[in-house]
Amino acid sequence: MSKVLVVGSIALDSVETPRGIHKDLLGGSATHFSFSACNFTDVRLVGVVGRDFPAEHVKTLQAKGIDTSGLKHEDGLTFRWTGRYRGTMDSAETLSVDLNVFGNFRPEVPEEFRSTPYVLLGNASPDTQRITLDQLDQPRFVMMDTMDLWIKTKRVVLENLLARVDALCVNYEEARKLAQKHNMASAIRVLLDKGPRVIIIKRAEHGATLATRDMIFHVPAYPTDRVVDPTGAGDSFAGGVLGYLSKHGDDEASLRNSLVYGAVMGSFAVEEFGTNRLKEIESKEIQVRLDALKKMMAL
Amino acid sequence: MSKVLVVGSIALDSVETPRGIHKDLLGGSATHFSFSACNFTDVRLVGVVGRDFPAEHVKTLQAKGIDTSGLKHEDGLTFRWTGRYRGTMDSAETLSVDLNVFGNFRPEVPEEFRSTPYVLLGNASPDTQRITLDQLDQPRFVMMDTMDLWIKTKRVVLENLLARVDALCVNYEEARKLAQKHNMASAIRVLLDKGPRVIIIKRAEHGATLATRDMIFHVPAYPTDRVVDPTGAGDSFAGGVLGYLSKHGDDEASLRNSLVYGAVMGSFAVEEFGTNRLKEIESKEIQVRLDALKKMMAL
Repeated sequence: MSKVLVVGSIALDSVETPRGIHKDLLGGSATHFSFSACNFTDVRLVGVVGRDFPAEHVKTLQAKGIDTSGLKHEDGLTFRWTGRYRGTMDSAETLSVDLNVFGNFRPEVPEEFRSTPYVLLGNASPDTQRITLDQLDQPRFVMMDTMDLWIKTKRVVLENLLARVDALCVNYEEARKLAQKHNMASAIRVLLDKGPRVIIIKRAEHGATLATRDMIFHVPAYPTDRVVDPTGAGDSFAGGVLGYLSKHGDDEASLRNSLVYGAVMGSFAVEEFGTNRLKEIESKEIQVRLDALKKMMAL
Repeated sequence: MSKVLVVGSIALDSVETPRGIHKDLLGGSATHFSFSACNFTDVRLVGVVGRDFPAEHVKTLQAKGIDTSGLKHEDGLTFRWTGRYRGTMDSAETLSVDLNVFGNFRPEVPEEFRSTPYVLLGNASPDTQRITLDQLDQPRFVMMDTMDLWIKTKRVVLENLLARVDALCVNYEEARKLAQKHNMASAIRVLLDKGPRVIIIKRAEHGATLATRDMIFHVPAYPTDRVVDPTGAGDSFAGGVLGYLSKHGDDEASLRNSLVYGAVMGSFAVEEFGTNRLKEIESKEIQVRLDALKKMMAL
């Protein structure tokens, strides 16, 4: 079985939603991704935390079989994000961001991780993502995420990077901004022209769309009625996608199926604060939702 | 083959979008619905227009085989809507509404239309919809639409009506407001409890979801890159759904398939101003998009 490498943020999140307030939750793109992907594959994590990072969090990651030998401890504070969701929880309002040790993060991929075949370059500055990519030894499938900030401030570096990865996995607003197009079909065409063979557009409660030059595929969101905290749903989605691909390869049939796994993992992520639901999923529960989603698409 | 009856608005629309400005377009819920459904079935139209309604529009409807013998001409002005879409065209901004003859519309369903098996109660006051329903003779399948205004001002009448119809077909915001629930799964459960056996939630460029107590089904939107004027997309969608059902019955397999037809018809509707694209669709074009959408959902 192939393994998966993720390089991204590890954070302490404080989150307010209509369902409650929680402080210092274990969060970050690499964390949510790892807790999701580890249900399907062996996960190797590269990231940085500060001296305030609770040792129990590292143990929790390790207890899920996540290889934390790429986790750097620095003498500063851990990346912190504070955010709020209101009403329909359609979008996060960032109340504060303290990059702390993540601000100067210069990933060092351990020697034994460099030939990992499936890779997620989690959301980080495209410079940081490039430094990671430069250290890898002929990965089979590299997927990257990004965000508004980098599209606005680092477009050139970002576009150079896009030409070097296999897949881009972003939300719809980011896709629109990166492509400078308003609608899905036009945005996909423009993004494919930028280099990646696979474009995945995460549409939150509206599901996700995957496109290559030869096909387009859409998966609905699994309709959970327990939406507690949307933080990390996109990274959990990505964990399902890459977790599946690492086991089944990246041909068209696998790409389609991987999106269903992504949607299922995203639906669990929102059901508790932080990674609390993700940490406790049983494989039986995953199977139930996979079956339900497939029925939602069957004619 | 079963026929379809639609009772709803016929309007002269003035629309501004980033793609242009057009005045006095033939519009209204019953019009868009009819131009869509007539591709699949025989359509009977009940509505009202004023003395300013161009005779050529009636001819255009008749040329598509739409039975206009339920079209009432009154000595006033036709319903007029003026609206604008900006940017991503995600939502319409109403600049003015003149109900005119539609304001006092008391539908009279012609004797020979009363036993039509498939019926759309197009968006109108729930009082108007009830008056229509009272005139029908054991219809097989009645679907109704509604809007924010009636949810806010006529909830009791609306809920009484919901207990009498087979299907509710509304957009996501309307579903949330009517159910007083934020998320899809909860909204669907509440709406099913109000009476209709079938709930259809139109999600614009995010597709559509259909639910009964036994199943849930989702169709993506067909990803057209030519979005010119979204007006009438929802009614065109409903035309595809009821057009299909009237030919194939309303069992679970038909309900699922009907949603794909709806999505295809909605995708055509947005490609020109008013009904200009809808009026010109060829059956071959419909088939191409049906096939493409099915591929978008196939694992």
